[in-house]
Amino acid sequence: MAAITLFAEQGYQATTVSEIAERAGLTQRTFFRYFSDKREVLFSGSGELGRLWLEAVAAAPPEATPLAVVTAGFDPVAEMFIERHDFARTRAAVIEANPELKERELIKLQTLAGAIEAALIERGVSVSAAILAAQAGVTVFHVAFASWVQQNDPTAFRRLMDESLEELRSVTAG
Amino acid sequence: MAAITLFAEQGYQATTVSEIAERAGLTQRTFFRYFSDKREVLFSGSGELGRLWLEAVAAAPPEATPLAVVTAGFDPVAEMFIERHDFARTRAAVIEANPELKERELIKLQTLAGAIEAALIERGVSVSAAILAAQAGVTVFHVAFASWVQQNDPTAFRRLMDESLEELRSVTAG
Repeated sequence: MAAITLFAEQGYQATTVSEIAERAGLTQRTFFRYFSDKREVLFSGSGELGRLWLEAVAAAPPEATPLAVVTAGFDPVAEMFIERHDFARTRAAVIEANPELKERELIKLQTLAGAIEAALIERGVSVSAAILAAQAGVTVFHVAFASWVQQNDPTAFRRLMDESLEELRSVTAG
Repeated sequence: MAAITLFAEQGYQATTVSEIAERAGLTQRTFFRYFSDKREVLFSGSGELGRLWLEAVAAAPPEATPLAVVTAGFDPVAEMFIERHDFARTRAAVIEANPELKERELIKLQTLAGAIEAALIERGVSVSAAILAAQAGVTVFHVAFASWVQQNDPTAFRRLMDESLEELRSVTAG
């Protein structure tokens, strides 16, 4: 939390790696053993997010619909985020305040959608259904995430995903 | 078509502005009056796409559902692309071959989704419904576009959008 707290306090641009290391009680050398730069502090979680989601996709039963394959990732992903609620809330405010970080967040999310899409195609799903299902899943994740960081219950994420999927169904029917 | 043809023939990276200008019978100076760099040749259409789509969104009746507001853009957008079919087909192959251009394409599409989302919120739509409807519309556009550049009928785009929306409904129901 040292880096993210500094970003929130004094702005992302204004914060140096030297300040982050000092606040965390690390040498800069140790910082750079874990992160390639200060931006990495904000995006290092996306690797685990993608890994968990794609593992769930790979483990989905062969007869599952494309959407069921994609939403198989919702349980492990919501679970992973429970203990990261404080971090995620502060992080969301930092990202929101910085267009470059928002663009990066967007690319990470679309990269994840692309990986899920590829896994669906690998399973025999048509390209168009794979794109539509992967985008639906990632958009639902994104909307639920945005709600989750704006409320106080760390365990609410999974329920918010269901609500967001229900809202997507209602919106696309409209 | 001079630039896009060169990109397709010899690769995007290998093509210089000087070659593009020569092929098009322009001076480099004239080229730079129209485009800031060679990448702009590929993305200059996205401004008009966004303008047409957002005009249609703004003109949608007040009682229209969020999805109806978004899909109001389908008619003018499909119309705009009819005469650009050859260009779009060659362009798609150039983009597909270059990860940096694919990322750029993605950002342009997400920027458009963000603008549509903002217009929906401006109309009084909730943030979550605005994100879901805008993403649905842009994903449907994207899937239909990918099909359209892989077949021969320039006028097929509008129909492919309807088919893609139908498929999204079926996928999200699954």
